[in-house]
Amino acid sequence: MRIIIDAMGGDNAPLEIVKGALAAQKRFGADITLTGDTVAVLRALESCGETTLPSGMEIVNTTEAVEMCDDPATVFRRKKDSSMGVALQLLRDGKGEAVVSAGSTGALLTGATLIVKRVRGIRRAAMAPVIPTTTGKAVLIDCGANAECTPEYLVQFAYLGSFYARRVLGIDNPRVGLLNIGAEDSKGTELQKETLAWLRRADGEGHLHFIGNIEAKEAIKGGCDVIVTDGFSGNIMLKSIEGTGSLAGSAIKSLFKKNLLTKLAAALVMPGLNSFKAMMDPNKVGGTAFIGISRPVIKAHGASNAEALENAVGQAIRFAESGLIADIEANMEHMKVEKE
Amino acid sequence: MRIIIDAMGGDNAPLEIVKGALAAQKRFGADITLTGDTVAVLRALESCGETTLPSGMEIVNTTEAVEMCDDPATVFRRKKDSSMGVALQLLRDGKGEAVVSAGSTGALLTGATLIVKRVRGIRRAAMAPVIPTTTGKAVLIDCGANAECTPEYLVQFAYLGSFYARRVLGIDNPRVGLLNIGAEDSKGTELQKETLAWLRRADGEGHLHFIGNIEAKEAIKGGCDVIVTDGFSGNIMLKSIEGTGSLAGSAIKSLFKKNLLTKLAAALVMPGLNSFKAMMDPNKVGGTAFIGISRPVIKAHGASNAEALENAVGQAIRFAESGLIADIEANMEHMKVEKE
Repeated sequence: MRIIIDAMGGDNAPLEIVKGALAAQKRFGADITLTGDTVAVLRALESCGETTLPSGMEIVNTTEAVEMCDDPATVFRRKKDSSMGVALQLLRDGKGEAVVSAGSTGALLTGATLIVKRVRGIRRAAMAPVIPTTTGKAVLIDCGANAECTPEYLVQFAYLGSFYARRVLGIDNPRVGLLNIGAEDSKGTELQKETLAWLRRADGEGHLHFIGNIEAKEAIKGGCDVIVTDGFSGNIMLKSIEGTGSLAGSAIKSLFKKNLLTKLAAALVMPGLNSFKAMMDPNKVGGTAFIGISRPVIKAHGASNAEALENAVGQAIRFAESGLIADIEANMEHMKVEKE
Repeated sequence: MRIIIDAMGGDNAPLEIVKGALAAQKRFGADITLTGDTVAVLRALESCGETTLPSGMEIVNTTEAVEMCDDPATVFRRKKDSSMGVALQLLRDGKGEAVVSAGSTGALLTGATLIVKRVRGIRRAAMAPVIPTTTGKAVLIDCGANAECTPEYLVQFAYLGSFYARRVLGIDNPRVGLLNIGAEDSKGTELQKETLAWLRRADGEGHLHFIGNIEAKEAIKGGCDVIVTDGFSGNIMLKSIEGTGSLAGSAIKSLFKKNLLTKLAAALVMPGLNSFKAMMDPNKVGGTAFIGISRPVIKAHGASNAEALENAVGQAIRFAESGLIADIEANMEHMKVEKE
């Protein structure tokens, strides 16, 4: 197993990326290819105490990097030798099993689609982060790749999310819910109503375990394992969870800072508090999978530190080993929605 | 000031509604009209220790109640003498300054629109709850009344929310943000892009303080005072905040239940914990205003207890005293969006 890592992507590149790559190599035993400026990468390795390139690690030199301000639609034409673009080319050419990048989300999605390409028959690739729920976790698909969706996209997302939940998260017969503003069949816009009908049919035919519409609150309570929605609403949900988690975190923190007694209380519950923070922290969760691309591409959080990058590599390995893409290919016929 | 309360609406009607009405009367000094089954209301008053009708309190007898399963579109035709419908008629006829109901949201919105009617020129009434932010609070408009919106609806919501934030929440020159999946002008669907252009124009002309697109996470951090969005995304945001708040609440709770030491810690921070819970608790926040209706209508949470109802009455009084509706009427000319 070889994972290709864009060493120049993200706010803390290349140092934290390289540090995370080293940790992932030790933890998971995978080989690593780093794409980026060789001199900068070697210097980062040196900062981590590595005077020579560790065995199983390679550097592919690139002279450019994709910046946040670059237009995703044109950057790979303008910058032919970017660390992100080269990483995706290596993946396409079979020089590794998955790509991990903490660089621009838009560019990575465009690059994955243009260079690595979607699975044949998949209309749109989706971003599928794993969110915390009261009882465990759930896959949220899509969360921003496709602001405007058709019922067919959503039906495909339902399958993609379901396969991901089963293959990568290990959830048997995942419960798929359609994110909506109420549980009744009449709720939502035309998009939800049409999608609901298709998903009910897929459930009836035994291809999916579809439980119907689900409200955001019920989904967070653990009401389903796969939350299907358009990228606009999915992004609003994801960012609302992040925002509220951070709001709750700072409220709790200030609670404990009041006086000597509350500071004492803080010491007593510190381990638990840290695990709560970790649950709400995108750095700990790792990366977001792009599902529907013909090979595994994982977007690590832009603010990733070494630990986040390490976790994203772990996720990339699980994805690559999961058989998820074969699942998609084998079920493509069910995912086609004829025009009504 | 007289507030009309639907005594039969909500999960805990009539007892908690009547209890809350009594508390509100004492706290705010307002007169109260209760619509509902006189016998049931008198019995509830008796349970609260009131053997006679308190001075300033009236009961208007009704023989029916709107149920959650009733179709909002037809219920007021089928049930001519419902506590909710009669409350709205009394408001229309000037027999009180505002209506508060904890009954079906859909029915209350339809009833408010059909019976009390919208302000002339307003295309759609919106539901505008006040959500907690890291630095204070913000108005979220719309949060579910209108799943499908046009740019004109959203432009009107921006004005309505801005007037509400200024008049009812007391925020000077409220910062209006358009909820989106990124801050850049190119983000979102056609709806957001068109709305953005109109709102920039309104800002340029000095009618609104528009700050551009805002992500859900930034909005929860306190990045704006008015969050403008369609009812679908607004509902997803609201319910995600509620769900995550409750997730955080139970995570914190279990944290403190671990052992004797953590239980001791809980005792030390209990007052603070309770105020955190209150911030996240819809019962404490009170009600959601329907803005754009020609008189104040407040939807109290369906699970309202007496305290929630009391708070919703307080909000109704502030709304009725605020001059908000006069504001809307005076600015109607700016809120018209010509077809392009």
